[in-house]
Amino acid sequence: MFSGTAHPDLAAEICAHLAVPLHPVRVSRFANDCLEVQLQANCRERDVFLIQPLVPPVQEHLVELLLMIDAARGASAARITVVLPHYAYARSDKKDAPRISIGGRLVADLLTSAGAHRVLAMTLHSPQVHGFFSVPVDHLHALRELAAHFKGHDLSNAVVVSPDLGNAKEAAAFARMLGTPVAAGAKQRFSDDRVQISTIIGEVADRDVIVLDDEIAKGSTVVELISHLRERQVRSIRLACTHGLFSSGALERLSAQDGVLEIVCTNTVPIPAEKRVPKLEVLSVAPALAEAMRRIHNGESVSALFG
Amino acid sequence: MFSGTAHPDLAAEICAHLAVPLHPVRVSRFANDCLEVQLQANCRERDVFLIQPLVPPVQEHLVELLLMIDAARGASAARITVVLPHYAYARSDKKDAPRISIGGRLVADLLTSAGAHRVLAMTLHSPQVHGFFSVPVDHLHALRELAAHFKGHDLSNAVVVSPDLGNAKEAAAFARMLGTPVAAGAKQRFSDDRVQISTIIGEVADRDVIVLDDEIAKGSTVVELISHLRERQVRSIRLACTHGLFSSGALERLSAQDGVLEIVCTNTVPIPAEKRVPKLEVLSVAPALAEAMRRIHNGESVSALFG
Amino acid sequence: MFSGTAHPDLAAEICAHLAVPLHPVRVSRFANDCLEVQLQANCRERDVFLIQPLVPPVQEHLVELLLMIDAARGASAARITVVLPHYAYARSDKKDAPRISIGGRLVADLLTSAGAHRVLAMTLHSPQVHGFFSVPVDHLHALRELAAHFKGHDLSNAVVVSPDLGNAKEAAAFARMLGTPVAAGAKQRFSDDRVQISTIIGEVADRDVIVLDDEIAKGSTVVELISHLRERQVRSIRLACTHGLFSSGALERLSAQDGVLEIVCTNTVPIPAEKRVPKLEVLSVAPALAEAMRRIHNGESVSALFG
Amino acid sequence: MFSGTAHPDLAAEICAHLAVPLHPVRVSRFANDCLEVQLQANCRERDVFLIQPLVPPVQEHLVELLLMIDAARGASAARITVVLPHYAYARSDKKDAPRISIGGRLVADLLTSAGAHRVLAMTLHSPQVHGFFSVPVDHLHALRELAAHFKGHDLSNAVVVSPDLGNAKEAAAFARMLGTPVAAGAKQRFSDDRVQISTIIGEVADRDVIVLDDEIAKGSTVVELISHLRERQVRSIRLACTHGLFSSGALERLSAQDGVLEIVCTNTVPIPAEKRVPKLEVLSVAPALAEAMRRIHNGESVSALFG
Amino acid sequence: MFSGTAHPDLAAEICAHLAVPLHPVRVSRFANDCLEVQLQANCRERDVFLIQPLVPPVQEHLVELLLMIDAARGASAARITVVLPHYAYARSDKKDAPRISIGGRLVADLLTSAGAHRVLAMTLHSPQVHGFFSVPVDHLHALRELAAHFKGHDLSNAVVVSPDLGNAKEAAAFARMLGTPVAAGAKQRFSDDRVQISTIIGEVADRDVIVLDDEIAKGSTVVELISHLRERQVRSIRLACTHGLFSSGALERLSAQDGVLEIVCTNTVPIPAEKRVPKLEVLSVAPALAEAMRRIHNGESVSALFG
Amino acid sequence: MFSGTAHPDLAAEICAHLAVPLHPVRVSRFANDCLEVQLQANCRERDVFLIQPLVPPVQEHLVELLLMIDAARGASAARITVVLPHYAYARSDKKDAPRISIGGRLVADLLTSAGAHRVLAMTLHSPQVHGFFSVPVDHLHALRELAAHFKGHDLSNAVVVSPDLGNAKEAAAFARMLGTPVAAGAKQRFSDDRVQISTIIGEVADRDVIVLDDEIAKGSTVVELISHLRERQVRSIRLACTHGLFSSGALERLSAQDGVLEIVCTNTVPIPAEKRVPKLEVLSVAPALAEAMRRIHNGESVSALFG
Repeated sequence: MFSGTAHPDLAAEICAHLAVPLHPVRVSRFANDCLEVQLQANCRERDVFLIQPLVPPVQEHLVELLLMIDAARGASAARITVVLPHYAYARSDKKDAPRISIGGRLVADLLTSAGAHRVLAMTLHSPQVHGFFSVPVDHLHALRELAAHFKGHDLSNAVVVSPDLGNAKEAAAFARMLGTPVAAGAKQRFSDDRVQISTIIGEVADRDVIVLDDEIAKGSTVVELISHLRERQVRSIRLACTHGLFSSGALERLSAQDGVLEIVCTNTVPIPAEKRVPKLEVLSVAPALAEAMRRIHNGESVSALFG
Repeated sequence: MFSGTAHPDLAAEICAHLAVPLHPVRVSRFANDCLEVQLQANCRERDVFLIQPLVPPVQEHLVELLLMIDAARGASAARITVVLPHYAYARSDKKDAPRISIGGRLVADLLTSAGAHRVLAMTLHSPQVHGFFSVPVDHLHALRELAAHFKGHDLSNAVVVSPDLGNAKEAAAFARMLGTPVAAGAKQRFSDDRVQISTIIGEVADRDVIVLDDEIAKGSTVVELISHLRERQVRSIRLACTHGLFSSGALERLSAQDGVLEIVCTNTVPIPAEKRVPKLEVLSVAPALAEAMRRIHNGESVSALFG
Repeated sequence: MFSGTAHPDLAAEICAHLAVPLHPVRVSRFANDCLEVQLQANCRERDVFLIQPLVPPVQEHLVELLLMIDAARGASAARITVVLPHYAYARSDKKDAPRISIGGRLVADLLTSAGAHRVLAMTLHSPQVHGFFSVPVDHLHALRELAAHFKGHDLSNAVVVSPDLGNAKEAAAFARMLGTPVAAGAKQRFSDDRVQISTIIGEVADRDVIVLDDEIAKGSTVVELISHLRERQVRSIRLACTHGLFSSGALERLSAQDGVLEIVCTNTVPIPAEKRVPKLEVLSVAPALAEAMRRIHNGESVSALFG
Repeated sequence: MFSGTAHPDLAAEICAHLAVPLHPVRVSRFANDCLEVQLQANCRERDVFLIQPLVPPVQEHLVELLLMIDAARGASAARITVVLPHYAYARSDKKDAPRISIGGRLVADLLTSAGAHRVLAMTLHSPQVHGFFSVPVDHLHALRELAAHFKGHDLSNAVVVSPDLGNAKEAAAFARMLGTPVAAGAKQRFSDDRVQISTIIGEVADRDVIVLDDEIAKGSTVVELISHLRERQVRSIRLACTHGLFSSGALERLSAQDGVLEIVCTNTVPIPAEKRVPKLEVLSVAPALAEAMRRIHNGESVSALFG
Repeated sequence: MFSGTAHPDLAAEICAHLAVPLHPVRVSRFANDCLEVQLQANCRERDVFLIQPLVPPVQEHLVELLLMIDAARGASAARITVVLPHYAYARSDKKDAPRISIGGRLVADLLTSAGAHRVLAMTLHSPQVHGFFSVPVDHLHALRELAAHFKGHDLSNAVVVSPDLGNAKEAAAFARMLGTPVAAGAKQRFSDDRVQISTIIGEVADRDVIVLDDEIAKGSTVVELISHLRERQVRSIRLACTHGLFSSGALERLSAQDGVLEIVCTNTVPIPAEKRVPKLEVLSVAPALAEAMRRIHNGESVSALFG
Repeated sequence: MFSGTAHPDLAAEICAHLAVPLHPVRVSRFANDCLEVQLQANCRERDVFLIQPLVPPVQEHLVELLLMIDAARGASAARITVVLPHYAYARSDKKDAPRISIGGRLVADLLTSAGAHRVLAMTLHSPQVHGFFSVPVDHLHALRELAAHFKGHDLSNAVVVSPDLGNAKEAAAFARMLGTPVAAGAKQRFSDDRVQISTIIGEVADRDVIVLDDEIAKGSTVVELISHLRERQVRSIRLACTHGLFSSGALERLSAQDGVLEIVCTNTVPIPAEKRVPKLEVLSVAPALAEAMRRIHNGESVSALFG
């Protein structure tokens, strides 16, 4: 069990759950900016888990992970499982412009090329991304953790709202878990920078809204959605996502929005203490990841648990 | 340019557009039920196109296609482009149950393993399926053809409805092309056989509805959607899809529904004369496929045309 | 241990011999004719055996098998052994016409591409087919079972006759096991449909003939051989083969031939009760397959047993 | 067009037919016995043909060929065609003992692994060996050349005899070309050294026998066949084969046999002047190979010529 | 011809030499820090060159390059040549500690995995790195450019000094080009940070020293070497290298050393104007790269030019 | 544990150290000079080690090894470790002439293509050769054994001399182990046959010289170095190398040189009794290889021992 530099706290929490040691990884940077990674414990014929969410700086963490995988392979690991609590490139899952790369497929191939035997991922941007990998993938969802949190609230008047039709199916599944209706913003993407929500499909007026997305980064879509929701006179707004990237001051900005009562995410992405705001609630996925890893190691069914 | 046995009419129409001969393929079936395929013209160093939609019987057509690809490779074709007007296995694009195969990825790998160098596909079930292929894919959409058809109608009161949230993004794109609003059924899949639309998200009452799906097979989802639409007092219903499989008497059943004025599909799937109903309108994608093949052969940009 | 739908009886018999459960496989057919296969028991880190002879409908059973293999791989099976009691595509083992596929090699590659780690096969059409696989193959022969059966007969005047020179080596090996001479038909293939035996090489007059072939499908070659044998005044005729496909009423036709006393085959191919004729004797290869699978699982020598 | 050191005369003759230069290859042997091969002409984007029959010393010629292929690949050859007038490892085409390699498949994979894009072979030991290659193979037969030679003889009383049932199909095809009957020795292989022909199947008495084999090396099988033939009072004996290896004084020994009138082979294998005997007739396959190479280079059908 | 963001000036200079347009590449960074690359001109069936030295930030430029390669592949480029004026990971060319990756091999595999067909590299850290690539590599050396520069100096009393025995062979080759003797520092590496030159092997006293290295980054080894050289009373010091990374203020520090008259490097690595010092002389490798690319494109020999 | 025919004594010694049986390998040579290898013990699911240094005749031993690997793979070995005490092709590690193969990379790929899972090598010609393998390599050095031998001598006045700058780093490491200074010959290679040492860099006069090289074959470089050393008035000369090939009477020639007191090598290469000279001392690497193999089999760290 090794962790890259992307999120050592999550790795430590997982290891604590499993009562196994987290072996250190030495990452050196040469004068010419190349990385060298050294796994600090014998891997020979071991069942090696490498924990590294692809969080910013993504390219640094990706190359570091590739070097870790290759090092484990060269050190004769029996099996290499890459644990990707956040797979950022999953958002590059289609070719919506000519002459671009489908990054989610490319990076999946790179991980395999470097020697990964299997992947444990959480809340991939779309379920099809699973099929980008040529190695077995165990795909966990954090909806269970998020639902457990919201079940503590009064949901009698709630509605789950997806900011985007592309994510609407996931929102519908979440709504079923909570026993609420569902609605969705119809988003129109002009370019990466200019996204505009044209309308909201479904009833939201006078409701307690729970906005659900897989990932919130800059949060501009959510901000726009909130203003549409306010126009429609919703009663309250709560924001929920698995991957809380919250870049460019997103937490401050979202937290300052009128009517936003709470922002809920999980710890697949590290959130430094100084960025945290009072309205933020971070749920831990370490127990779920730890249990999945225990089952993978022991050859027990993972689907039986999370199915 | 060769065609398998799946849809010789479409292949012939494409060749007529390109003014090139369609070379015959001899398909023999041995006494033990194995197939043998012989390409009936010299392939050596040629730019070979194999046209075969994966329509029922899908397994027969798939194995026949794999044999055609391998035969072309063994016969030293310079380049093998598989033309898949309908890629049926694209619907198997995620692992929504434990211990199943993601068929859309597996079949993509089989085509590559047999020797395909590139693929020309039309209206894949989800855009992510593009990423299942490790060879270049040119992915055309039939929305242009469908939109051209509906632009001849009065659309002042129209709304595009997707039977499923999963297809809602495509419906939204179609609605933008027509200048209409969009709505979607929130479908809940209990099993492959039992699908139930729980609600319709968006305004449809008193509207001229155009239902859009990528593929209509048995049509049970659409039938269910129609009854929801009628409950909501829509003014008229038109059905549109790219891939008109219409299995198990679907055409008769849909055609008989109250309020259905028209059923529009393309000829990616062959529809025998005896199955056709008066309300059916079949648009041809042969010009689009032919133009794409011409550009592929000449090394011209395909995206420039269809972008 | 899982069985596809091709021959559940044989799979059940093998499992009974091994005293292990045969886990069910759910095979669904979608409305668009695509298959989905779900293995109904945890495979994770298990030693998985998939039993599926490629019997008619061959293409259905082949794609089903490919989906089973891929499902087992995706479910993290430790090792996947494909048990092919009948490998129909083995007959496509050479390129005897331009621009055809060598199907026996292609299908071997497809099985590997889908994730098979090893193969257990029985009486491949030619021994060279073994070399088509890039994964380890254990190749059993049913000659032992067939010889045991005939050793109960009076063989003092017997001769083994191969319908075809291509199979003559196998017939010679069988003759040595029985202590009899050997003869062979010199077959000339004009096309797949028109085969003609020009002559019989070797002494057969006044002999008790045992015709041996690896597979009997339509049986037209054998019928023709029988008429040559009768011309040469043989005393009696018995037919033996490993793979009794008996398509197109072959059993009735062969059984009705003058002088044919017995038709012997094994159960690598299922023969429905309604097709069986009184002269038919079906020997079971389940004990041999079961013992081989036991040894494969335990890492014991298979050649030691069957060498 | 480059030739290894195995058979420069054949390469030169082929080039003379094609009126193209044969570029030299420098083969150095280091003090530690490793080989280094340097192609002596620019290969970049060229259509490179490497001519090297795998004749003794086979291992030296094989490694030399692999180095030539890799050198051509590293030098950016557009296409690398390996011309194998004699593929010695084709005889290792089945696993007839436990824990041996199927050398014919292994060497095919090594050639591909080194970078060969296609293969031009002549009279492979069995037609299935074609399927061992994962790259396109053009497989020529020297039967045409051999038949042309024998058509100059009086064949009214001739019979073609295969020393082995395994080669009987090829002998039957040859017999059809000559319009003669066919017979075969039933050979039993006890070990590589001890082979024994138990009987001859078919009529040979008082006939002019043409013995046909693909390859004659030590010739012990043929010697044994000859003594069987003499016992059966044949009128005359002629020997024919494609690959005349004639090791261990085989030519002297065969030439000295009573009743042997002529020994005919082709020049796929070099025969030094000092080994030649008066009864030996060597036919050239250079015209056939040259024409095939011309067609391969120009993208014309090869099967059209030799089918 | 496309350039990544690593060194657009060099790319522009190369294109100017070739009189071909440099097509732009759009590099976007999503809110979650993932990159997306779009090639801005049709690649279909084109001979595509991607110019990207792996200079700091190395990981960003590497992933950008991988995305560019994959985009070109997906856009059906006929051939993709990666031009690596500086391959930083070449320094990770051996496993000198347990459980590290050999980064030079891993990155070579990643480039191939992404779809590169060939590589054009300059002054790889060791010549063996060439063998890390499974695709053809054209490997240019900048020694010719450096030698041309120094031939303008009075070399009668000069000596070439390699800071490290590992680079001594290259220094010896350079010395032969200049007609001078050679010497080398015997370096001892304690860790990545602590390197110590123990001694200088060879005569340097009272000489005009030209220090030659492939790459100068922080320059600490060179600084140490200079102090050894001064102890040995050299007459003057000039520094020469191909890849002038000059990180952490290296240029200022080296320039300030007593006795250093000149620092010479090439433009494989961009050096911003504000880092440049008066003693620095930057030679252009654009003509050499341009000529090599012209020859690669036209299928002419590259070795003939640079051999 | 199997040994090829290259060095059975070393294999036997290793097995004695490990107290495991050395299973025989039957190597047959067919009349056409092809090899067939049969492993003489069950490999199924076993951890198989194949011991074969690539010593002359190198090509024979290489093909024999490839056949052994493939046989073990086909016989279902769980893991195949190739033990290469001497990897002769490691000297072909760069492309120093156009249109040659980098043999060290090619042979590494061939071993992998045949089925090797890992490699145990000793004193590779350059440390970069490690990176030529795509499978894990454990790379031992014999410097420890050589140093242990020389520590028994008086080293107060000793100097380690590398015949070549390319090997100088290794010599420096050896010198550090012995606590002596280091020097090196500056060798200039005109062709494979003509090598000339231009000078010796470093102090050697009046010293006890230990010449260190990885491999001595014909020994011409060393002979030339000795004459340079004598010119510089060294006190005594000892020769040390790991791989003592000693071809073409090298041992006699070196032993006859004035001032040469001792020639030390290891037993990675077999030295027949009749070639041995009194001054020769052969150290055994069997204990080191045996211990490494024990650790590989048990999954213990190899670097911990030899780091």
